[in-house]
Amino acid sequence: MESGTKKWGFQAKKGMRSTASISVRGVLNRLAESLNKEDKREVIPLAHGDPSAFPCFRTTPVADEAIFDAVRSAKNNHYAPTVGLLPARRAAADYLNRDLPYKLSPDDVFLTLGCIQAIEIAVAVLAAIPGANVLLPRPCFPYYETRAAHSCLDVRHFDLLPEKGWEVDLEAVEALADENTVAMVIINPGNPCGSVYSYQHLEKVAETARKLGIMVISDEVYGHLTFGSTPFVPMGVFASTVPVLTLGSISKRWIVPGWRMGWLVTNDPDGILQDSGVVASIKDYLNISSDPPTFIQAAVPQIIENTKDDFFSKINNILGEAADICYGKIQDIPCIICPHKPEGSMFVMVKLNLTLLEGIDDDVDFCLKLAKEESVMALPGMAVGMKDWLRITFAVEASALEDGLERLKVFCQRHAKKQ
Amino acid sequence: MESGTKKWGFQAKKGMRSTASISVRGVLNRLAESLNKEDKREVIPLAHGDPSAFPCFRTTPVADEAIFDAVRSAKNNHYAPTVGLLPARRAAADYLNRDLPYKLSPDDVFLTLGCIQAIEIAVAVLAAIPGANVLLPRPCFPYYETRAAHSCLDVRHFDLLPEKGWEVDLEAVEALADENTVAMVIINPGNPCGSVYSYQHLEKVAETARKLGIMVISDEVYGHLTFGSTPFVPMGVFASTVPVLTLGSISKRWIVPGWRMGWLVTNDPDGILQDSGVVASIKDYLNISSDPPTFIQAAVPQIIENTKDDFFSKINNILGEAADICYGKIQDIPCIICPHKPEGSMFVMVKLNLTLLEGIDDDVDFCLKLAKEESVMALPGMAVGMKDWLRITFAVEASALEDGLERLKVFCQRHAKKQ
Repeated sequence: MESGTKKWGFQAKKGMRSTASISVRGVLNRLAESLNKEDKREVIPLAHGDPSAFPCFRTTPVADEAIFDAVRSAKNNHYAPTVGLLPARRAAADYLNRDLPYKLSPDDVFLTLGCIQAIEIAVAVLAAIPGANVLLPRPCFPYYETRAAHSCLDVRHFDLLPEKGWEVDLEAVEALADENTVAMVIINPGNPCGSVYSYQHLEKVAETARKLGIMVISDEVYGHLTFGSTPFVPMGVFASTVPVLTLGSISKRWIVPGWRMGWLVTNDPDGILQDSGVVASIKDYLNISSDPPTFIQAAVPQIIENTKDDFFSKINNILGEAADICYGKIQDIPCIICPHKPEGSMFVMVKLNLTLLEGIDDDVDFCLKLAKEESVMALPGMAVGMKDWLRITFAVEASALEDGLERLKVFCQRHAKKQ
Repeated sequence: MESGTKKWGFQAKKGMRSTASISVRGVLNRLAESLNKEDKREVIPLAHGDPSAFPCFRTTPVADEAIFDAVRSAKNNHYAPTVGLLPARRAAADYLNRDLPYKLSPDDVFLTLGCIQAIEIAVAVLAAIPGANVLLPRPCFPYYETRAAHSCLDVRHFDLLPEKGWEVDLEAVEALADENTVAMVIINPGNPCGSVYSYQHLEKVAETARKLGIMVISDEVYGHLTFGSTPFVPMGVFASTVPVLTLGSISKRWIVPGWRMGWLVTNDPDGILQDSGVVASIKDYLNISSDPPTFIQAAVPQIIENTKDDFFSKINNILGEAADICYGKIQDIPCIICPHKPEGSMFVMVKLNLTLLEGIDDDVDFCLKLAKEESVMALPGMAVGMKDWLRITFAVEASALEDGLERLKVFCQRHAKKQ
């Protein structure tokens, strides 16, 4: 049969919609293609949010053991309830309750495939409200934008203020919101900024959101990964002021991003999310979504209960030292400005001074050439909504980090404008 | 602050859209609520598709070992590529190639969270084609309908013919299709029908689809779970006639549905799905979707390579014997008619003769009362698109199956119309 001439109903000429998406992974793929295969040096990954490959960031044996036990029992091969296994929901609630002035119940916790699916669900729930719009920070983890575009949810951007430790520009939030605004998103500790918000700032965020009648979606996937002077405060602390959806996971604190185990939590002591139909909408969406594998859910209680504080402090210490190295080295590079030393997460945002460079068009060009000439990967700010900035990951083993930053410096020197 | 009187922008009064969904799990929840807690007998689950809780259906130790090895290596805690880990894609391609006249490449395989996410992706890809419609079988696994409704994809139904072993009514397919039809779905071995399609019938399906210029989406999640005279033939065998998307997983054959490890495969020897943009659309959607946990992906090659045929034959033998018990017992119940003895999967569809019963309104009423009076769960046909039928699972340990069917008989006797 002549399949060459055959007409098929699904052909692209019909104008197939594309999910136009800026994803960190898409940008990383472009950078990877730009690498010079002749360069025999190790590639230094300063663009990712996944340090699990480095031995110093290996997860605790407690986590592995919990998986082994859950599989060995042979009791977790079945389908899980769409909301998640009750013991795992309870364990996550107890874990979060350590830092809250009221008690979450297991019913407030919905288990998700990492924080990514928690974002997907939050966006889908907002998109189900006709005409709704959501306020996103700039810069932002790009998946919010991507997922909102897919769900046809209108987004508006408020700035984070680098000179104020990347705090939310609350005046901008008030100016942006209208009667169709239903939520604002914060990411704390910050991706891509490495910021950690104070109790006072979060309180102001809560008051502003309350005034506007919008919920706060608080992405705390980097929760407790802090190493500066500002302690981590969960947004749920202010849930009596404003209803909060908290998104989180074990991915970052336990350094197991590939395990895809996260949660979406309703901080709703006054039952506002319940009464308004948001909780029902979350459950509806979970009914048509994929679940985290049952045995990984079943491992959650043991992972949370058995992990000792010394594992967490060790990771935070490594990150803190890495942030110091990173901040220090960057001070030595004239064309790169760091407005705020990171205090949490795994990232720092730095600004390129392109007037000091020759033959570099913008942040993307900078990163492509850096990858090609120095085998160093850094994320162009474009990917997080900030042209001519870079997001640099310091969650890298120390010697590799120093090597990578030294190469970055050499690269900048090579491209420096002749005086 | 007076949260009782506060107005919130996300309140339901705004007309939040609900994902109206018939799901097997939703119906099971209703049945579970109907159970009589005073009844001290074991609940017999004849409504589910998940026998993993029965010791005789325990997965092979090979599968557990593969997970242990993947976790122990500490090399699989990272994020996986959106399309899946290459060794796992290669292993799945090799596994499927055993039954194909040409060779799939690893690039044809996209790893998914069970077959559920494979269905989600297939539906999303079709829904991205403006105005498209898809042809679904009746009866059908309800998730196709649910997901199509969520993606605003138009669906049309063709009948499966009980008197012909639940073959596709190909004349109906031709009559239903129009210039906007892009695909038809078959499920083989059949859920909910327990049917296994012959080579000859699948060839006719391929020819019909080719004539209509539509692809075939072949759900083979029960692939190789056969115990009748008809051997399992994958639809991909006919991919030179018509492009085929094959959906599958390790869930059923390895009895690990909770592991959420599946695949979507393009059987596309002539590059039609590639050239038409379908492959690009699959990749686009994967870019914004959650991935299967990396270490489960990493376990796939070992699971596939190390599982011996005796495990598969043991499971098929148990299912075959259970199908015999089920078919035999049902012959003894006058108000239940089984038009076709199951030859595959875990299910049989049977028709209620309500004229022989008293005080039973329909299939849902039948199942609610059966749950309440006899602690037996069976799925109302309504959930799979066939009012006044039942879907009965025989993937149940033999003594429980006999007990459950005996209770079903007693129930029918109790409700029999007095002559």
